[in-house]
Amino acid sequence: MTQTLSISDRQRLQLTPLDLPTRLLLGPGPSNAHPAVLQAMSTSPLGHLDPAFLALMDEIQSLLRYVWQTENPLTIAISGTGSAAMEATLANAVEPGDVVLVGVKGYFGYRLVDMAGRYGADVRTITKPWGQVFSLEELRTALETHRPAILALVHAETSTGARQPLEGVGELCREFGCLLLVDTVTSLGGVPIFLDEWGVDLAYSCSQKGLGCSPGASPFTVSPRAMEKIQQRKTKIANWYLDSSLLGKYWGSVGGASRNENRVYHHTAPINLYYGLREALRLIADEGLASCWQRHQKNVEYLWEQLEDLGLSLHVDREFRLPTLTTVCIPDGVDGKAIAHQLLTEHNIEVGGGLGELAGKVWRVGLMGYNSRTESVDRLIEALQKVLPR
Amino acid sequence: MTQTLSISDRQRLQLTPLDLPTRLLLGPGPSNAHPAVLQAMSTSPLGHLDPAFLALMDEIQSLLRYVWQTENPLTIAISGTGSAAMEATLANAVEPGDVVLVGVKGYFGYRLVDMAGRYGADVRTITKPWGQVFSLEELRTALETHRPAILALVHAETSTGARQPLEGVGELCREFGCLLLVDTVTSLGGVPIFLDEWGVDLAYSCSQKGLGCSPGASPFTVSPRAMEKIQQRKTKIANWYLDSSLLGKYWGSVGGASRNENRVYHHTAPINLYYGLREALRLIADEGLASCWQRHQKNVEYLWEQLEDLGLSLHVDREFRLPTLTTVCIPDGVDGKAIAHQLLTEHNIEVGGGLGELAGKVWRVGLMGYNSRTESVDRLIEALQKVLPR
Repeated sequence: MTQTLSISDRQRLQLTPLDLPTRLLLGPGPSNAHPAVLQAMSTSPLGHLDPAFLALMDEIQSLLRYVWQTENPLTIAISGTGSAAMEATLANAVEPGDVVLVGVKGYFGYRLVDMAGRYGADVRTITKPWGQVFSLEELRTALETHRPAILALVHAETSTGARQPLEGVGELCREFGCLLLVDTVTSLGGVPIFLDEWGVDLAYSCSQKGLGCSPGASPFTVSPRAMEKIQQRKTKIANWYLDSSLLGKYWGSVGGASRNENRVYHHTAPINLYYGLREALRLIADEGLASCWQRHQKNVEYLWEQLEDLGLSLHVDREFRLPTLTTVCIPDGVDGKAIAHQLLTEHNIEVGGGLGELAGKVWRVGLMGYNSRTESVDRLIEALQKVLPR
Repeated sequence: MTQTLSISDRQRLQLTPLDLPTRLLLGPGPSNAHPAVLQAMSTSPLGHLDPAFLALMDEIQSLLRYVWQTENPLTIAISGTGSAAMEATLANAVEPGDVVLVGVKGYFGYRLVDMAGRYGADVRTITKPWGQVFSLEELRTALETHRPAILALVHAETSTGARQPLEGVGELCREFGCLLLVDTVTSLGGVPIFLDEWGVDLAYSCSQKGLGCSPGASPFTVSPRAMEKIQQRKTKIANWYLDSSLLGKYWGSVGGASRNENRVYHHTAPINLYYGLREALRLIADEGLASCWQRHQKNVEYLWEQLEDLGLSLHVDREFRLPTLTTVCIPDGVDGKAIAHQLLTEHNIEVGGGLGELAGKVWRVGLMGYNSRTESVDRLIEALQKVLPR
């Protein structure tokens, strides 16, 4: 070993092992991962082409289809967090010059706009005040005006707590010959979704919310109809890591690669996160999707009731409120940031602040996955009683 | 909750909790994560803007600078595996039309070519047979011919086991006014690297090899010189998830955002992987980089000696052999794939096969991070004695 240079210790921190506070994460995500998920994640890793690992990937694919209610062959986890899966839908489906119509009614609509632009889309937007949703009529008018190749909507706007109804939107998109792309980051696992029945062509989500896992392995699915558009691309997919044709060959979802011997290495998967995701999905399959959705609904209704009993009001109309995330209006004269800080430092409870139009106006309270429990609500209400000015 | 559609149980697998074989991972990666890393990864997650988590991100930045021997302010982890960090260097530094010269002497050189092309580079290549490396003279001639904006080299070719010497290459790149981009995926933590002394401008790595962590959080660094090129871009970075200007604001590495209150949310970090990475880096700082490098060198020399005692020969000239990954020639008449399969199924030891030019010709044996121990060598040799034909 030739080593004539000397090593600098300037950045060599001397640290003790991790010693972190234990928080109850009731913000917009991440939520606390289920203890069984954390345990699964500490299993010693296998190789990314080990037959036992490929079998686990198959299980993940099936269970993701179950929670999304889809039969899409290409239903996989992206090896990154939810934003990477968001980018995967656009990177694959958008060709330069495509008109992409984005329904913007919160922060994540703008993120779709930003990303679509980077892939050369001719981006058009329709907007709504933050906390509201689009009607079918509004969507029809916009499709008539813009004639997009893709309509992109956020099912559960993490920045507002509003649920965009999707019934009928898929039919509308077929009528206008466009693909339907849907963000289900804050809905998957906690809010009823019927991807195939609703005619959704491209969807993505994350692991650390309704699924009760840790962040880093993010659901991504492509309908056969969207796959056709991708296969007919005239330009190469402008993103290697998120290229669905390469990913499909590794996951065995496309090109007849369902048998282990045909799998083609793409990248090294985040093995231990896949362990966690498999366990999180297994727990949902065990509970049953209907029970899981009902649990989220029941617990959020209890939260709403308790918050209103405290004299607080909620930002979104009841009809469109998410069971996973609630935006709570900060009362006049109350310093929302200070209250959140107190909840964190004095009670180890995290809640989120507002973004964009809602900055300084709301707290965001999540009850997602493992954290959708009455105990979570009780701990938060008890703490709020202590920190809110009387 | 309106829910008129009925739930399909077609993809609802009924599974038991994870029950996986425990393998000794002596392939090209992943390697086994250190037990303390796996334990850290099972810690309950914090929020991605929690002050305690931001402090942990600062620790990761310092320790990454230490293992890379750099003072680059923007030295962070990408929230994806090594290939995502590879793509991050190109996505940020390449503008359409830039000449990118790639030294190809193995599989990962080709990956750089593929990725650079997707970002609009005018890609040129120089090649060497797999297992060899470029001389300074060859690089000088190539720079004279191609006058690139970026020269990209793989320090440790995971597909061949060869180490590309980098002494003097940085000076050469400065003489020709180009940036030096280096793949350190299979070198970081196990092979001496002096990023600043060598004048490297862009580098990336992974977590699951020399660092002894689990895959999914991947080191990425940008020199002030490369940062200047990025800041002078005329086009937007064509990748949102890997946009260094947005990442730098979240990590507090650019734009005066070093104080917590200035951090700007970009994406939700893979929290638990960052816990693991911090622990892996802490263990290296504890051991000391010099000892860590020496350990890799000592153990690989023991491996070489033992393999040669078995009558096996090694593919790469001793001078350029990696301490982390060894390519072992498959003897004539031996079915390399069958032997690897036997090692896996009968001895729970993973070794890798050859790729590209070396397919069917070599096994790839990694001794990286936690797995760089004499016990690893002893277990492998004992198993090889049983499975190799006499």
